[in-house]
Amino acid sequence: MKRAAIIGGTGYGAAELIRLIHLHKYLEVSKIISHSQYGENITTHYPHMHTYMDLKMEALDVRVLANEVDIIFFATPAGIAKELIPQLEGNHVQCIDLSGDLRLPNRDLYQKWYGQLGAPQEILDKAVYGLTEVFPNQIKDAKVVSNPGCFPTASLLGLTPSIKEKIIDTQSIIIDGKTGVSGAGGSPSKMTHFSETNENIQPYKIGKHQHIPEIEHYLSITAGESINATFTTHLIPMTRGLLCTIYGRLTKNITTKEIIHLYQDFYANHPFIRVLEEDQTPTTKNVYGSNFCDISIHVDERTNQLVIVSAIDNLVKGAAGQAIQNANLMNDWKEEEGLAQLPIYP
Amino acid sequence: MKRAAIIGGTGYGAAELIRLIHLHKYLEVSKIISHSQYGENITTHYPHMHTYMDLKMEALDVRVLANEVDIIFFATPAGIAKELIPQLEGNHVQCIDLSGDLRLPNRDLYQKWYGQLGAPQEILDKAVYGLTEVFPNQIKDAKVVSNPGCFPTASLLGLTPSIKEKIIDTQSIIIDGKTGVSGAGGSPSKMTHFSETNENIQPYKIGKHQHIPEIEHYLSITAGESINATFTTHLIPMTRGLLCTIYGRLTKNITTKEIIHLYQDFYANHPFIRVLEEDQTPTTKNVYGSNFCDISIHVDERTNQLVIVSAIDNLVKGAAGQAIQNANLMNDWKEEEGLAQLPIYP
Amino acid sequence: MKRAAIIGGTGYGAAELIRLIHLHKYLEVSKIISHSQYGENITTHYPHMHTYMDLKMEALDVRVLANEVDIIFFATPAGIAKELIPQLEGNHVQCIDLSGDLRLPNRDLYQKWYGQLGAPQEILDKAVYGLTEVFPNQIKDAKVVSNPGCFPTASLLGLTPSIKEKIIDTQSIIIDGKTGVSGAGGSPSKMTHFSETNENIQPYKIGKHQHIPEIEHYLSITAGESINATFTTHLIPMTRGLLCTIYGRLTKNITTKEIIHLYQDFYANHPFIRVLEEDQTPTTKNVYGSNFCDISIHVDERTNQLVIVSAIDNLVKGAAGQAIQNANLMNDWKEEEGLAQLPIYP
Amino acid sequence: MKRAAIIGGTGYGAAELIRLIHLHKYLEVSKIISHSQYGENITTHYPHMHTYMDLKMEALDVRVLANEVDIIFFATPAGIAKELIPQLEGNHVQCIDLSGDLRLPNRDLYQKWYGQLGAPQEILDKAVYGLTEVFPNQIKDAKVVSNPGCFPTASLLGLTPSIKEKIIDTQSIIIDGKTGVSGAGGSPSKMTHFSETNENIQPYKIGKHQHIPEIEHYLSITAGESINATFTTHLIPMTRGLLCTIYGRLTKNITTKEIIHLYQDFYANHPFIRVLEEDQTPTTKNVYGSNFCDISIHVDERTNQLVIVSAIDNLVKGAAGQAIQNANLMNDWKEEEGLAQLPIYP
Repeated sequence: MKRAAIIGGTGYGAAELIRLIHLHKYLEVSKIISHSQYGENITTHYPHMHTYMDLKMEALDVRVLANEVDIIFFATPAGIAKELIPQLEGNHVQCIDLSGDLRLPNRDLYQKWYGQLGAPQEILDKAVYGLTEVFPNQIKDAKVVSNPGCFPTASLLGLTPSIKEKIIDTQSIIIDGKTGVSGAGGSPSKMTHFSETNENIQPYKIGKHQHIPEIEHYLSITAGESINATFTTHLIPMTRGLLCTIYGRLTKNITTKEIIHLYQDFYANHPFIRVLEEDQTPTTKNVYGSNFCDISIHVDERTNQLVIVSAIDNLVKGAAGQAIQNANLMNDWKEEEGLAQLPIYP
Repeated sequence: MKRAAIIGGTGYGAAELIRLIHLHKYLEVSKIISHSQYGENITTHYPHMHTYMDLKMEALDVRVLANEVDIIFFATPAGIAKELIPQLEGNHVQCIDLSGDLRLPNRDLYQKWYGQLGAPQEILDKAVYGLTEVFPNQIKDAKVVSNPGCFPTASLLGLTPSIKEKIIDTQSIIIDGKTGVSGAGGSPSKMTHFSETNENIQPYKIGKHQHIPEIEHYLSITAGESINATFTTHLIPMTRGLLCTIYGRLTKNITTKEIIHLYQDFYANHPFIRVLEEDQTPTTKNVYGSNFCDISIHVDERTNQLVIVSAIDNLVKGAAGQAIQNANLMNDWKEEEGLAQLPIYP
Repeated sequence: MKRAAIIGGTGYGAAELIRLIHLHKYLEVSKIISHSQYGENITTHYPHMHTYMDLKMEALDVRVLANEVDIIFFATPAGIAKELIPQLEGNHVQCIDLSGDLRLPNRDLYQKWYGQLGAPQEILDKAVYGLTEVFPNQIKDAKVVSNPGCFPTASLLGLTPSIKEKIIDTQSIIIDGKTGVSGAGGSPSKMTHFSETNENIQPYKIGKHQHIPEIEHYLSITAGESINATFTTHLIPMTRGLLCTIYGRLTKNITTKEIIHLYQDFYANHPFIRVLEEDQTPTTKNVYGSNFCDISIHVDERTNQLVIVSAIDNLVKGAAGQAIQNANLMNDWKEEEGLAQLPIYP
Repeated sequence: MKRAAIIGGTGYGAAELIRLIHLHKYLEVSKIISHSQYGENITTHYPHMHTYMDLKMEALDVRVLANEVDIIFFATPAGIAKELIPQLEGNHVQCIDLSGDLRLPNRDLYQKWYGQLGAPQEILDKAVYGLTEVFPNQIKDAKVVSNPGCFPTASLLGLTPSIKEKIIDTQSIIIDGKTGVSGAGGSPSKMTHFSETNENIQPYKIGKHQHIPEIEHYLSITAGESINATFTTHLIPMTRGLLCTIYGRLTKNITTKEIIHLYQDFYANHPFIRVLEEDQTPTTKNVYGSNFCDISIHVDERTNQLVIVSAIDNLVKGAAGQAIQNANLMNDWKEEEGLAQLPIYP
């Protein structure tokens, strides 16, 4: 049994990590670190865990972590992991960062989009981007994994096979993202106040979302050329779920069926990616609470556009689930370990 | 006081027409026609109108209508108006069709997308497309108005100034539509069953929606050239509201501010179109229950894309409200008559 | 045209007052007072009003108010009206207080339930309780009206005829209240954060809600004896709407039909109270956005219990709508003035 | 590994049974019976199970069932189980009926409330009522278990300790039930159509719900006297979750704390019942997707009323979860087997 620590214990990411680790055979939550509520039992903050968890949240102590846990999950806001992970260097501990601190390749890009100083470049160089199905081999050997953002997960899983097979114009990519409100975290705000969010669609950060450079960077790596993408995001009145509708201009004559086969081949050994058959479309409900990413393919022959739809649960495949999946790879456990639950339906 | 008849009395379109006409100075509901529930009082079907309406629904009788009403609103499924309107020809009655029967320019196109025979060509030729802000002069002189679809309303109002000013590549247009569930009408179905719709986004009819040829036809008229557009639709867990995120590749160097000015000029005398200032975005809540269409403009300089966001209440500006607005023009009433309510908030 | 001032300009109560007054023939919003955002245009805070309102919010100045407006609506948190209204004494201005400051008959009771000092007793003695259908004559002559709370409105309208007719045991009353989230106001909090509220029912303040003494006091006045009632409240995942399910033990042999007749008689001249027929039940959707209170009656013969269901829109009949209705009575305007809109459906 | 058959394969109950059995160590779904869709793969109907289930639904054949499965779950509408279970008599198969067919003690009562002929009396006599925490010993020895209704589960778990300890007047019980829409099943209807249900509370079947005699019968057994209860139900705009607010007049002087202790003692060895501490209240979100029943206690000293709040997930503890829990008892498996997931939050 490996011992996991979760830093950022009172956020939704932590809650989801705890839910998933609870069913994991080889992993247990041994420490929950909370800056604001250490000393309190986790069930005071999360009554839904009452009787199933009994753990006092602790203040951060890097030396204690280094000695007493095997894996650290950073379920923290931007700016924490980049400070702590360097202090854990040279240590046996595996680090999986769910914040954006280590996702961009260099400090300048991070500073431009996140508005604060980036992590030390040597840490950035060492961190492996944890998009499990695209970089599995690198993840297996990593000690520091940077877990992808929710929108990048859905976008990159939807786009990578098309980019790799060079079937769309790399300068034509448009991603229209829709997300449930839990993606904005647990801190109340006007935009996420029930009376404002319910019966409403709210577009936000058009062309300015910090997930843009992340999407572009990993698309560019697959493409072997620099890619820019247009990306918009919309807040939808639901708690969980994220769906991206992705558009790209086809560069060759190819049918929906043929592209589906390309995708099914690309994801053949990846149990969490379900490439749908022709005329099917993903919905967020079909992946609710699960680590699945459902993808559908639609060639619009009238306009020569490829439309790709990609759906995940933002808190599972888009955050905590993919983090567990990465931990499984890093430790040679079965990829599905702790993640085998069916989606909750309806 | 002019007398209005509503055909299709038990649908959401009819309910919304009744709500709006209730506040109209020069119009009153004098007949409600229902194929399935004639003989019943309207309040049996719509208890929310209890004490404010007291009208027995009637069976259809074209001669009675011709003699006893001044304006007929067709809030009917596809296939009814195209049969009835020819029978009312040569008569003084004004007809406003909220179904799709008269929106496409020819019978073949209708048959291709609606899967049934189209209206007689002479009726199609006579019908004026009721996109109020774009074709106001034709509407003023019309006796038969074809009220636009909900998605075409938001899409065309969002795109027309850009097309007219030739600032985007006409072959690059992508419209990503999101709609509340009332757009699907009042008949229960699996897709609109609460437990299926709630906590869910459901894309549907990708590249196959019958609103596609309508959007393309009226864009083409504005452009003076044939336009195809990529169009996707998503069912969102909310009752009312429709938002289109529209993408087009810029053909010239132009700023967000400059485009906003173009739009503000274009819609200068149109009280229901609100072109937002830079960095603002529309939400469906801001137009809830009202006849407004809110539009925002975003130039993505990194990708040379223009992003336009356009939001309406699908049952008001996307259906009943625009129908009343057209009736106002046809009768020389003030354009805002019956439509001056503020959006309901929150 | 009378000039209205609204104090507390950035809350949901103010937004709803503005929406309703916008359609009022004899009343106009001439001043909006905001402690926190004076100097800003109201549309900066409420973009849904853009183009329909153009008014700068002002800081509070009692002398200016006294001279320049005719009616003041206090859409303020507890504690403001009790300070300001005494300063407006001896003046021509009519005051309608939507906060709870003047609802309880004496300062001790207020202090016990609201946790702060009450209004001066002479103001309390002068204020008339604005439950329009129950105290219409007192309201007509009042200069200071204390507008009822949302739960008391639904509860008292549901119970008063039964209490007056002495058909239920006055010591057996149980009120089970359910409310939409807008009743909690516009300030974000954990309890009203979308991800916490959606897909959830949250009971709160069981037996401790500050509306309890208000309900009991005005029931007691009707009864001519002291009444205590059990009262629970539940937060429901919807924005608007409030429904009370009320239980009382029958003291005599009487049928559902007979009680319905009692209620229909009691509310015969009151257009906003709709007493439903046997086997009908109110829903909050049937009163959405309107000033209606729908009431149904159910005798459970097996248990000798009377069940009364009462539904309102918490922001209209439960707040701003009833305030306008009271203003209408105080100024001898038609009771429905500004309130004649149909409920918004669906 | 025991083989389970699920009859009624296309309903929400079946979907939930499959989800839970999927994580069960000793149980596997070997047959899914569907009257309407046999021959189809279960994933055609339930795409969320795609890649995790691969089973063709079958037509009903009692002999095949008798020979090839060990446990049958009836996730059927009323009227099926009462026909089939007698045919399985004398056989080794364990039957767990999730419909109401076997819940009432005699045929007359069933006919009165369900409007159809009841099961043979000898089957009724043999069936054990599967309220796990209240009748565990009888369930352990049963071959036919009648799984409780969702409202009776929450009501009886909330009331039983108070009845047993005789602290409330047995003739004063009022149960105010609120349920999410999945309780109404997967068949579309006007009442469960999204546009009608969203932003709405709909009371229904007041005093007439078929769960009333079930609640009364099992309360009466605990009390040793005949109990009638007033029971109302409300449809709430959420998919899952059921909460009962229960009222009873106290017969003795007793504090909230003391009653909490009584409840904690009563449920001491029952891991799925969580009796909350003073001043806490259950929410449906805290039990979402789990088999928990959370219960809180509130003495209202002003009115001498005991208020009990009880919350479950209607599809888990209120249906499929309790059915699995009963199967665990019947087979001497650990009570939590297959049910150890944490609630999904948020």
